[in-house]
Amino acid sequence: MHIDLSFRLMKIALYQGPGLINNIPASFALMAAKAQEARAQGAELLLLPEMFLSGYNIGPEQAKAQAVTAEGLAPAREIAKAHNIALAFGYPEKVGEEVANSAVLIGPNGGILLNYRKSHLFGDLDRAMFKAVGTEFPVAELHGLKIGLLICYDIEFPEPARRLALAGVDILLIPTAQMQPYEQVARHVLPARAYENQLYTAYANHSGEDDGLSYVGLSSICGPNGVVLAMAGLGEEMLFAEVDPAHLAAVRAADPFFKDRRPELYGSLAETK
Amino acid sequence: MHIDLSFRLMKIALYQGPGLINNIPASFALMAAKAQEARAQGAELLLLPEMFLSGYNIGPEQAKAQAVTAEGLAPAREIAKAHNIALAFGYPEKVGEEVANSAVLIGPNGGILLNYRKSHLFGDLDRAMFKAVGTEFPVAELHGLKIGLLICYDIEFPEPARRLALAGVDILLIPTAQMQPYEQVARHVLPARAYENQLYTAYANHSGEDDGLSYVGLSSICGPNGVVLAMAGLGEEMLFAEVDPAHLAAVRAADPFFKDRRPELYGSLAETK
Repeated sequence: MHIDLSFRLMKIALYQGPGLINNIPASFALMAAKAQEARAQGAELLLLPEMFLSGYNIGPEQAKAQAVTAEGLAPAREIAKAHNIALAFGYPEKVGEEVANSAVLIGPNGGILLNYRKSHLFGDLDRAMFKAVGTEFPVAELHGLKIGLLICYDIEFPEPARRLALAGVDILLIPTAQMQPYEQVARHVLPARAYENQLYTAYANHSGEDDGLSYVGLSSICGPNGVVLAMAGLGEEMLFAEVDPAHLAAVRAADPFFKDRRPELYGSLAETK
Repeated sequence: MHIDLSFRLMKIALYQGPGLINNIPASFALMAAKAQEARAQGAELLLLPEMFLSGYNIGPEQAKAQAVTAEGLAPAREIAKAHNIALAFGYPEKVGEEVANSAVLIGPNGGILLNYRKSHLFGDLDRAMFKAVGTEFPVAELHGLKIGLLICYDIEFPEPARRLALAGVDILLIPTAQMQPYEQVARHVLPARAYENQLYTAYANHSGEDDGLSYVGLSSICGPNGVVLAMAGLGEEMLFAEVDPAHLAAVRAADPFFKDRRPELYGSLAETK
């Protein structure tokens, strides 16, 4: 009998929590604990929030002090390998003398599969900390599924997710640090992005007020028909959902959005004036 | 004292109902009754569903038989004038020998302010009836606010609404005929479109099973921060909400989405391959 591995299910997990501020060793320890917990539940991928390694609202000096290059991600690679689980999380990335608000996807063998730098900076908060800004939208493959990363504010714009969908992404991972009063994003924009792009979304938020901001929680995993498969409340929580390639294929076959687009009418979206 | 008329409130109404099939005179009579009702409540604009004049699922022969040119809209112009209310509604438009799925906005003085032809056709249903397809996204002004029209399936794509937002639209009117199993559109995509584009949306659906399709109702009016201001149930209903230019300005000032866009990264959205 031939087993078609391209159509296997993949369980994914996300952790919503208050996080730890300016304490990278403790954040790696928390990562290890959550990776073990997720793997014990059968998950093959664990998503953690934006700037998980350092906390989000740490200011420009600490962002610089906490920032790491790929070498600084070694403990996460060990955790992935030790627990045989893919990990995606946000961290302050040292880019020359500057800092980027980045997210990385590490495979279950410990290899770095993709690294993304936030391309849409949010207000003075982001701009004070992050002088290195993303211009690339890399895509990686994991267990036969294409994975893309965006970070927080990026998802509020329809264009970055659309760009990744056009590049074939099946699961869009979005570490976030989403605070009041932007509940509409968690409640409506995420399901809409999943629906319109016919892909799975996983949106992992901070909870509580770990760093002076009041986070809305409401992390979610949505299916490619826009159905909310799992949604967190306000507090610490892990969410799980199964990614089903057969469901992805069925949704895309039923409604051919990407055939029905009319890109010849969309020129003004890319005009830089 | 100087009264700044550019900052006046405008109450808008939408009618969700089962509609009338292949009976244009009765549809105009229903339009007149609803216009009077809306005006009595203080509304200055009434939105009606997609293909309101004829019913939606009428098949290619009836679509051709019921189709009208601008001349056939004369009764609606009289109703607008008689009740001093702007009207927007869907109708089958005769375009040469073909039919377009169109929507028109008529001003309170009876003048046609804009006419839009659906640009994204939905499945075999639309394609069997409508051979004339839209390529233009006109914008009109009403009481100092910029108005755009889209129809049903158009709103499921982020690009057409974005294009209108980039053209300065304040109120996006969407006549629709939205059936099962597409509830996610009504529940999530509409608030997301309003939020991401920082404009008011009004989405007027059919209800019931007037023409062999099972409509989801759930018509809505959303504010420019993504808040659902009014949402219908499954049955016949009128919705009302106030459009507030000061609120529009405040939302846009608080979160400068259109300054924070990075159109230089969005080229692939307009690629026709």
